[in-house]
Order: sequence, then structure tokens, then C-alpha cells
Amino acid sequence: MARIALDAMGGDHAPAATIAGALLALQELAPEHGIQLVGRPEVIRAELDAQLAAALPAVRDQAHRLTVVEAAEVIEMTDKPSVAIRGKPNSSMAVGLRLQAEGLSDAFVSAGNTGAQMAATTFILRLHEGLTRPAIGTLFPSARVPVVVLDSGANVDCSAAELVQFARLGAVYAEDVLGRPNPAIALLSIGEEPEKGNAAVKEAHRELAAAQGINFIGNVEGRDVPMGACDRGPVDVVVCDGFVGNVLLKFYESVPKLIFGLLAKSGVSREQLAGALQGLDYAAHGGAPLLGVKGVSIICHGKSSPEAIKNGILVGLRTAVSRMSDHIGQRLASTAAGSTP
Amino acid sequence: MARIALDAMGGDHAPAATIAGALLALQELAPEHGIQLVGRPEVIRAELDAQLAAALPAVRDQAHRLTVVEAAEVIEMTDKPSVAIRGKPNSSMAVGLRLQAEGLSDAFVSAGNTGAQMAATTFILRLHEGLTRPAIGTLFPSARVPVVVLDSGANVDCSAAELVQFARLGAVYAEDVLGRPNPAIALLSIGEEPEKGNAAVKEAHRELAAAQGINFIGNVEGRDVPMGACDRGPVDVVVCDGFVGNVLLKFYESVPKLIFGLLAKSGVSREQLAGALQGLDYAAHGGAPLLGVKGVSIICHGKSSPEAIKNGILVGLRTAVSRMSDHIGQRLASTAAGSTP
Repeated sequence: MARIALDAMGGDHAPAATIAGALLALQELAPEHGIQLVGRPEVIRAELDAQLAAALPAVRDQAHRLTVVEAAEVIEMTDKPSVAIRGKPNSSMAVGLRLQAEGLSDAFVSAGNTGAQMAATTFILRLHEGLTRPAIGTLFPSARVPVVVLDSGANVDCSAAELVQFARLGAVYAEDVLGRPNPAIALLSIGEEPEKGNAAVKEAHRELAAAQGINFIGNVEGRDVPMGACDRGPVDVVVCDGFVGNVLLKFYESVPKLIFGLLAKSGVSREQLAGALQGLDYAAHGGAPLLGVKGVSIICHGKSSPEAIKNGILVGLRTAVSRMSDHIGQRLASTAAGSTP
Repeated sequence: MARIALDAMGGDHAPAATIAGALLALQELAPEHGIQLVGRPEVIRAELDAQLAAALPAVRDQAHRLTVVEAAEVIEMTDKPSVAIRGKPNSSMAVGLRLQAEGLSDAFVSAGNTGAQMAATTFILRLHEGLTRPAIGTLFPSARVPVVVLDSGANVDCSAAELVQFARLGAVYAEDVLGRPNPAIALLSIGEEPEKGNAAVKEAHRELAAAQGINFIGNVEGRDVPMGACDRGPVDVVVCDGFVGNVLLKFYESVPKLIFGLLAKSGVSREQLAGALQGLDYAAHGGAPLLGVKGVSIICHGKSSPEAIKNGILVGLRTAVSRMSDHIGQRLASTAAGSTP
């Protein structure tokens, strides 16, 4: 039985999109799981009542699996990350994360202010031993299966040691949440050769090549990411610093719009396009876990639709049920204890 | 009258693709311009004769505008950059570039070993005063007009000062070769705000915001590149370090393949797709100038088709005729003389 806390107040379209997402998720979650709606009770109740009144009986029948958890404050999209910790101690983010720290919840999901969510998660849930920073692991659609790209925005200037940490975090995520045994971990660079890349990447390559307990397949290039594979085989996890990862992520979000426009101009029908390109829709892949913290904190896009919120909840469940966070802690501990150079 | 030197031996499909590209270019270049085919005369002659024998009379009539320049050595794709300078002093690259240094040619175009071309160009043509490194400016197709992204691979670890130099180089390129007066220059980052980015980008933002003689419009994000615009208007030049630029470039090359596959699966016809996506074809935009050197050196993709070679030649011509290199020198000199912080 898992309890998923949803930041009902977070995101550009909250609370309508968050409540709608929770109702969608209930239809897909096994009956033993429940959702905690965290935020201002009167706002949540009003929205929930309105949506339930218009819902099918099958949806209404599941409403008992929702609980409302009061949080008096709301973090705005424009608030600084520090506000999440000091300025608004009773925000829906802080309350949702404290539930987990106190053992009353199993995962936290939010489409709110990402910087605030990172800060609050790190502050309240804490990082696993041996880590200096958390990382965001985002799924990039590919021609094969989605590829985990991390860090996709939590860290801008990364050391080689941090890139190596990201590789370890990504490996456990791919194994636990995506169900890929012995995932292939690659380092993003500007050539396959170990001597290609910037200073941090070259050093990280040396460390990863010597590291134990990780299936490091070497460098990949930008072109390999949308293919989900390189010359040497499939790629499950791509490691890069958060500056590169974030630029790439936003670039990727934008390319389908460009191509949609080009194809529409050439007479391909909108229905054909929409069908074909839906695989490139980020919402289909749900939220991105903040990796490295002791617990589960799922970051959703601020513009999340109900479908995206629902998928974020499902990711939160898989992350909690697979005990990914515990596994990360164990893996890091065994690395520290081992003789890895 | 401009004389464009083409590395007849350079590229995966040389000399067939390079000779074919030269013949295509002759049909588009104004009659006063000529092409110098640099390489092994016997190889060039044999290929040229074979292609001319099969060509239309209109093509054969223009063959007198081709001259063959002997170069005994060839740089291989696997040669180290230093080979271009010391190991093979009579390579087609070195000979083609020396022609320009001696005033006997106006531009050099190659689809050969990029690292070798950068090294040889910097060694033979030299950098403009005030520069520490050259940069590669690549055109990215966008929903509007192509966007210059630089550096796209010549430099991996870049200082803020180098990013500022790239902005100046890109501005002159966009003005001279793309014909965009007062081009909008943007810095690639992970948020619009000046305080977003890694250390080098944040410092470069401060310097660019204070710089004179440059239309700096602030930060753009990855999503703005395929749109060719941001919230604040059109974007002509995007400045980034060569690691980010190269990852993005190769990523972008690969995305259409993915989408092509998705659409083909959904029943869109191959003809519709090919027509719609040809705007994303790099070959259509020709080669990328190595910016900052005193002269013209156009870098083409190793896999260049004849069409791509032809477009590289046209870019070489525009670059030479517009006197872009002189303008870069003048612009840098006036910056050094001015009171720009």
C-alpha cells in the first residue's frame, strides 16, 4: 500500500489540472494505493466537488481513496527557492514532503516551482550519504525506449565526481523505475573517444571506466540520444551536467513544434501528425524524480495537464514501490565501502 | 571576381562528391567567379573527365572556370590535427589555405578532417588580433530563418571572454554572409534571467550587456533555437561553448530521423515527409565558416553530398565577397580601441 502526496496547489493550471490528474490516476492505480491532496482544504474541496459532480460513477466510487491534507501556504512560481524552506514553512510542498519524512507518505509529486521543490526536498528529505547534490533525471523519448538524461537542470557547474554520482543515480532509477536490468550508462560528449570532451567529462570518463558496479558503455554524442542507441548498442542512461541537459531538454520540447509546422505546410493532415508525434509528448512520460534525496520527490512540468499529473503520480508510485531511494543509498554505501578508485 | 579553393580530396565521398559539387556550383556562381580544385592532379583530372563526359553541354561549357592546383598529400579523416601543420605540409588543405595567404585565392572550402582544417587554417591564415581561438558558426534550421549557433565544436572549455568574442564573430557573420543588418545576438542559457546559467555564461551575460556595438538581446533557452525567436523577438545568433553547441548540433541532426520513423509508421507517405523535412537538411545550408581567422575557411560535413559541397562553395563566395574577415578584424580593433568594459 502506497500513499502518494500530490501538491494540489502546484503548477500553472492548479488546482484544476492537479485534481483532474489525481482522479485519472485513481483509475489506474491498484485499489490499495491512495492519493493525498496537499494544499488549502477549501480550494481543494471546491474543485474536487465540482469535478466529482461531473464525473462518471466509476470515478466517484474511487473518491474515498483521496485524502485532503491541509497546507496553509502556497509557493508561487516566482518565489525564490529559499522561500520554500524559510519563508513559507507551511507550503503545500513543505507539508507534503514532511509527511514523507514522518513516515506518513511514500512519495511526493509536484508541478510547482522546480527550484523550490529541489530546495525543499533536499532540506526536508536530505541527501543520501556521499552525495553533494541531487540531480533531475528526465526521460527523453527515443526511437527505441525512453532514455534517462541526467542531470537535466538541478546543477549547472558540475565536477567530474558529480557526473560519476549522476551515473550511479541514473543506473538505479533505470533499474527500479523503468525496469531495465543492468542498464547501459553513457556519458554525453562530442566524440566517442575517451579523450573527447570538456575537462569534467574527460575526467568523469576515466573514473567511470574504472568504476565497479556500473555498466558504463563510454561516450555518446548528441545524435545518439534521440536514437536511444549508439554504434555499440542500446543506451538507457545519458549523463551530462545540468546546463547541457536543460538546454537539450528544452530544445527537444521545441523541435516537434517546428516539424509540425513544416509538415502541416506540406499538406500532411493534423490528425496524422498528432498521432505520430504523440510519442514525443513529455506528458506521456510523467514527472522526473529528484535523484539523490532520501525519499521520493517527483518534479512535473509547470504546464502539466491532468494527463501529465496522472503520469507523475504513477511515476511516484513506481519510484516508491520499487524502493529506489533505499537502493540508491545502498549502492552508494557499497561504493564508498568498496575499493573503487 | 572571386577564386574559391575547394579541397577536392576532402570528405567521405571525395573526389566524386567534391567534383560534382564544384560543377553544380559553377551553374549558380556568377560567370566572373572560378573554382580552384586542390589535390592530386591525376585523381582530379580522371574524375573531372568522367563527370564532364556524362554532363550536359551547359555544364561542359563552364569547365574553363575550373583550375586544378596540385597538392601531393592528403589529410586522412583519422589524422591528428597536428599532421595538417607539420606532418603533411603539402596536403590539399595546406596548399589551398596557402593560396589564400599568398593572395592567390579568396576562400577555402573543405569537407575533410575538421580538426585538421581548424589547425591548418589557424596556423596558415592566423587569427585576428585580440582573439584566442577561432569558432565554428553553424546554421540551425528554424521555424523562421536559420539561426547561427556558435561555437559549434571548435572549443570545449570556454571562458566568459571567449563567449563574448563568439558574440562579436557571430554578429559579423550574420550581417555579412546572411545579410541581416543589426542581428539579434543571444546567449544560450537555462533561463531568461541574467542570473541563470553556469559561471562562464553568467559572467558573459554581464559583459555582453555592457558591451557596445552589439545588439545583445539577453539569454535564450534551448526551446528558442528551433523557433528562431524568443519572447522578446527574433534571434539571429545564439552564443554557447563548443561542447554545448556540438551536442546540440548532433542532436538536431538526429531528431528528424526519429520523427521520420514515427510518421512513416503512422502512414504518412515518404514523399510528403521528404518534402516537408528537407528544410531541416543541413546540406541545404552549406558549410560553416571557421570564424576569427584572417581569411575564409569553410568547414563542410564529412558526409557532404555534391549538393552540400556546392552550398559550401556558395557560402565561401558570400563570405569572401562580403569581406567578412576584414570586417571582423575592424570590429575587433574598434572594440579594443573603444571604452567597452
